[in-house]
Amino acid sequence: MKETEISQLGEFGLIDRLTTDVKLVNKESVKGVGDDAAVLEYKDKEVLVTTDLLLEGIHFDLRYVPLKHLGYKSAIVNFSDICAMNGVPKQITVSLGVSSRFTVEHIEELYSGIRLACEIYGVDLVGGDTSASVTGLVISITCIGEGEKENIVYRDGAKPTDIICVSGDLGAAYMGLQLLERENKVSAGQKDFQPDFAGKEYILERQLKPEARKDIVRLLREAGVKPTSMMDVSDGLSSELLHLCKASKTGCRVYEEKIPIDYQTAKMAEELNMNLVTAAMNGGEDYELVFTIPLTEREKIEKIKGISMIGYMTEPSLGCALVTADGQELEIRAQGWNAF
Amino acid sequence: MKETEISQLGEFGLIDRLTTDVKLVNKESVKGVGDDAAVLEYKDKEVLVTTDLLLEGIHFDLRYVPLKHLGYKSAIVNFSDICAMNGVPKQITVSLGVSSRFTVEHIEELYSGIRLACEIYGVDLVGGDTSASVTGLVISITCIGEGEKENIVYRDGAKPTDIICVSGDLGAAYMGLQLLERENKVSAGQKDFQPDFAGKEYILERQLKPEARKDIVRLLREAGVKPTSMMDVSDGLSSELLHLCKASKTGCRVYEEKIPIDYQTAKMAEELNMNLVTAAMNGGEDYELVFTIPLTEREKIEKIKGISMIGYMTEPSLGCALVTADGQELEIRAQGWNAF
Repeated sequence: MKETEISQLGEFGLIDRLTTDVKLVNKESVKGVGDDAAVLEYKDKEVLVTTDLLLEGIHFDLRYVPLKHLGYKSAIVNFSDICAMNGVPKQITVSLGVSSRFTVEHIEELYSGIRLACEIYGVDLVGGDTSASVTGLVISITCIGEGEKENIVYRDGAKPTDIICVSGDLGAAYMGLQLLERENKVSAGQKDFQPDFAGKEYILERQLKPEARKDIVRLLREAGVKPTSMMDVSDGLSSELLHLCKASKTGCRVYEEKIPIDYQTAKMAEELNMNLVTAAMNGGEDYELVFTIPLTEREKIEKIKGISMIGYMTEPSLGCALVTADGQELEIRAQGWNAF
Repeated sequence: MKETEISQLGEFGLIDRLTTDVKLVNKESVKGVGDDAAVLEYKDKEVLVTTDLLLEGIHFDLRYVPLKHLGYKSAIVNFSDICAMNGVPKQITVSLGVSSRFTVEHIEELYSGIRLACEIYGVDLVGGDTSASVTGLVISITCIGEGEKENIVYRDGAKPTDIICVSGDLGAAYMGLQLLERENKVSAGQKDFQPDFAGKEYILERQLKPEARKDIVRLLREAGVKPTSMMDVSDGLSSELLHLCKASKTGCRVYEEKIPIDYQTAKMAEELNMNLVTAAMNGGEDYELVFTIPLTEREKIEKIKGISMIGYMTEPSLGCALVTADGQELEIRAQGWNAF
C-alpha cells in the first residue's frame, strides 16, 4: 500500500481528500460538508439525533479489526440507534482523532467503510472533522434520522402482557469476538500464521460487519404494527430488557428456549466451553431490535420472518426473570458494559 | 474534594448522575437524554448540525485549564459554529471518554461547565454518553441549531467590493495561552507557586472562557443586515479569510491598522516580544465572527457597537493580502491549525 504521511496533506488537505465527491442523496440534506455546520430540512418529520464515541483499546482492537470494517461498523451502530426509535437514518457527521502512526491511506480505508455503509443505507455524510491525536484512534459519529411523530417508539411504552420480540439471533457477535481474541493469542509471535475460520464465517461477520435492522422497521410498518417500546441490542439482551422494564415500569419473563441462537454461535460456545445462554443474554453488539407488542398484534408478527417472541411483560412487582427449560426462574441482572 | 471512583457508579450510574434534573427549555426538544436517540421538532426552520472533537494533549492541556472552564469552552465552540451560520444553537449532545485517573467529581466539574454554558445560551442537553478511555480525556460535542431558510449565511456568498467585518477583538485568546504556558514553565517544580495574572484578566478569560457571538447574530438581525458570507474565527483570521475567499471565489484586502486588538493583548505581545499582528491574524480561538456585507449596508453596521470593518473583497485575480500601515501588501497565507 502506498504510504502518505498525514502531515504532507495537513488537516484541511486531508478533509478535502476524504470528502471529495461525497454526494447527497436525501432531499433533507440541504448543505453537507464544507461550512461551519450542515443544513438540513425536516419539515413534517421529527428529527432524531444519536451519537457514539468509539475509542481504540476500549471499543475496538486494531490487531484484529480491519480499518474498513471498523468504519462500516462505526456507522452501523449509529444507524441502529435511529432504527431503535422506529426511524430512518438520513445523515451522519464523522469526527476522527488520528495519531501519527496512521497514514492517509489508513484513514481512507476507514472512510471507505463509513461511505460504504452510507451508500447501502441511503445516508448522507454531511460533516467531517479530522484532527491529530496523541494517543489512539478516536471515532465520533453523530447520526440524524427522521421519524413521524405518531410512529416514534420510545423505551417507556410497554404494558404488562405485551409480548417481547427480538429480531434475528443473539450472541453471535460475542462469540465472533471470542474467536478473534483466541486466534490473536494463538498467532502471537508466529509469522505467517493463518487462522482457520472455516465454518465460522457467520459469527465473524456478525462481529466485524454487523447490520442495522432498517429492514425490520420497514417490515413492521408494512404489517401495520407499531411496537409499544423498542431498543437495539448493543450492550446485551439482559441489559436492554432491564432498560425497557425500568422505563416502562414493568417486569418481564423471558424463556431461555425461545432465545434465537444460530448454529455457529452454539458450536463456538461449545468449543470454547462457554455458557451459551449467558453469551446470548449478555454478549452484546448484535444490533438486533428488541421490542414489545400488544397481545392483539401477535398474528401480524408471526407472519414476519426473522422475528422471535421470547417472553412477555409483567407487573413490575414480579421483577425481571429468565425462565429456564426446566421451569426455574433466574433473576435478570444488569451486566451492561462497564470498562471502567 | 470528595473522590468517588467512576467504577463505583458504572457507566449507567454515571450518566444518570450527570443528567439528573437536566431540564429542557426549548419547544423544539421533544425528548432528551434517556432513549436511543433524542427527538427534536423543527417544523418551519432549517436544522443546523455541527460537531467538535476535543482531545487532551491536542486541544487542551489540563495542567492549566480547569475542568469547569474546559466544559464551558467545549460547549461554546459548538455554539459558535451555529452562530457562524446566522443561526441559534438549541441542543447539544455530549460524549465523553474518561480514563481511570478521573473521579466522578472531576466529571461533574466538567459537566457543570457544559451545563452553565447551556443555561446561559438557552441550549438543551439532549444526549449524553460516557465511556472509559485508556488514554486521555476525549470530549465530543454535537450541537443542533435552527435557522430560517432565507437567513442562513454560508461561506460562499461574498462578492467583490463587499466589506469585511469582524466582531470584538482578535489575538487575545492566543496571548492568554502564551501567558498560561509561560507561567506553567516558570512554576514547574515550584511548590505553592502563585502566578501573577494582575492586569491580564481579559486575555486569560478570552482563552479560558470564550463566548459565542449569539449577540452579534441578534444585532445584525435587528439592524436588518444579512451578511453575504460568514465564519467564526476558530483557527485564526488568516485561515478564515482564505476559506471565505476560496468558497466565494474572491480575493481580499485587509488593513493591518483596522484589525481590532485589545490593550492587554498588545501589552502581552510586547512583554513576550512577539509580533502583535501575527498573533491577531493567526492566533485563533477568538470565536469572533468574520463576515462580509454589501457596500450598501455600511451605515447600518457603523451603528452597531463592537463591529470593525477591516477591509473588502476583491476580484479573485488580486489574491488575498494584508495591507500594512506603510502601504505594503503581504500575501495572506494558510496557517490553519496543523498538529499532525
